Amino acid sequence: MNRRNFAQWAAALGLAKILGASETAEAAEKKAGGGAPSKETAEQHHLDAIKRHAALTEGPKVTIGLLVYPGMFLQDLVGPLTVFESLMNREIHLLWKNLDVVAGDKPETPVLIPVKPTTTFRDCPEKLDVLFVPGGVPGTFTMMEDKEVLDFLAEKGKSARFVTSVCTGSLILGAAGLLDGYKATSYWATHDVLKELGAIPTKGRVVVDRNRVTGGGVTAGIDFGLKIAASLRSPDYAKAIQLYLEYDPAPPYNSGSPEKAPPVVRQFLDDMFAGMRETAFSLAKRAKQRLSS
Amino acid sequence: MNRRNFAQWAAALGLAKILGASETAEAAEKKAGGGAPSKETAEQHHLDAIKRHAALTEGPKVTIGLLVYPGMFLQDLVGPLTVFESLMNREIHLLWKNLDVVAGDKPETPVLIPVKPTTTFRDCPEKLDVLFVPGGVPGTFTMMEDKEVLDFLAEKGKSARFVTSVCTGSLILGAAGLLDGYKATSYWATHDVLKELGAIPTKGRVVVDRNRVTGGGVTAGIDFGLKIAASLRSPDYAKAIQLYLEYDPAPPYNSGSPEKAPPVVRQFLDDMFAGMRETAFSLAKRAKQRLSS
Repeated sequence: MNRRNFAQWAAALGLAKILGASETAEAAEKKAGGGAPSKETAEQHHLDAIKRHAALTEGPKVTIGLLVYPGMFLQDLVGPLTVFESLMNREIHLLWKNLDVVAGDKPETPVLIPVKPTTTFRDCPEKLDVLFVPGGVPGTFTMMEDKEVLDFLAEKGKSARFVTSVCTGSLILGAAGLLDGYKATSYWATHDVLKELGAIPTKGRVVVDRNRVTGGGVTAGIDFGLKIAASLRSPDYAKAIQLYLEYDPAPPYNSGSPEKAPPVVRQFLDDMFAGMRETAFSLAKRAKQRLSS
Repeated sequence: MNRRNFAQWAAALGLAKILGASETAEAAEKKAGGGAPSKETAEQHHLDAIKRHAALTEGPKVTIGLLVYPGMFLQDLVGPLTVFESLMNREIHLLWKNLDVVAGDKPETPVLIPVKPTTTFRDCPEKLDVLFVPGGVPGTFTMMEDKEVLDFLAEKGKSARFVTSVCTGSLILGAAGLLDGYKATSYWATHDVLKELGAIPTKGRVVVDRNRVTGGGVTAGIDFGLKIAASLRSPDYAKAIQLYLEYDPAPPYNSGSPEKAPPVVRQFLDDMFAGMRETAFSLAKRAKQRLSS
């Protein structure tokens, strides 16, 4: 395979973007010869390395669909997305009703980084390897009552290889009837809401029950993503992504769960979330009634 | 303070967005009375809780400026941003030369979530509490040679309370002359490049030397953000954000640093990054020459 063909092959596999290898080898050759450090040389190293380590990196194409919606929490999406983009030979869709930018819950509360969907529900591939739902309150609450969204998830959830969520996204999966009888987790403050949706609330950073894979709150998305990457490819490939993302966490404090947080912190958040929990329970009960009728 | 005034006060403090409390109390009252669960009730709980826990949450306004640029790594930005957005009474600017969307390095490699700057260099507030630079190769390399960007960083770095980065962002700070004689860290694969820029490469998830605060690769941005939050407010407030984000990491594998990764993974990434390191060293040497002349 000559350099040009290799670059085209790499681009076709979707390697180009994540590895920063985008110019064709031909363009690189045109530019070469100067005394300046060559970015193209670095890119060629990337591509050559992938080729040499094909046993680690190769695998059949995977199709990943991530729901995006107004008021979702950006980190819930970006954590898993960062891991998924590190996979090679993958196709990623940001799914919504239409291609309008999804921003905050309400016009008067704009978000700093609005997300533009790439694919409408209608154009979503027939079969997804991963169907993913991020969390974010109160956006989650709106989704729990949105028939178009729930119908779409219920339909795609039938055939998806993995039906997944992070944070309060599991409440949306539950409202779509996708967690009935499944062990699942959620954001710590909505963990027990899951039982109203027929799920079995289960403690864990990432909870796997058959093909349902649910992550805890917000930052659990990175742990979750690596777990999915291992299932889609191999544990070694997931480890390569972990090193690529230097995911060697060292929180400066030990306050990441209600059990670990100091009382003053726990009280503040319990107090702040009291009304949110009440709303979540009501919506979950209503969803369950709808699903049972 | 009546409910309406409180909501206005909360909005002014920037509480509204992060806590999902956006409708005024007046609007909430108008809608109340139905049998439906009220999101406004949840929002009011949030606001009331913040008021009751003012000792924990209040503090003088902080101004945070985050450089955004074509080819940056989104998670490098979103990790710290997620923490910073959880601060109350803060003003956040996404800074770039102009307000054009920053996307991938090259048109043929679009990114899934392009970022629109909020503020031009010209309109950046005079004094920043935090000046932050994310990483992302090869975008970082382009920035290391971009006079307009380096001049802007050098200028703002003089007065900023904290001069900070995550991942290869420290190479940009270094090229702007902001790390000369400072201990600093970077992405694991570019850690030793720092010495070419006059910095003292130092191991650590987050390295603090006087007002320079640099984080390791990509996912270190969350640890980094919490460290900054503690400096801007208090350790207890940082702990509240940690619980809010349920940052209780549990990587499914132990492969997040070159020392911990299995040989097959280490070899793959070393091999892939060989050309990148070469380029980084060349650019760093050239930057140092420029700074010395």
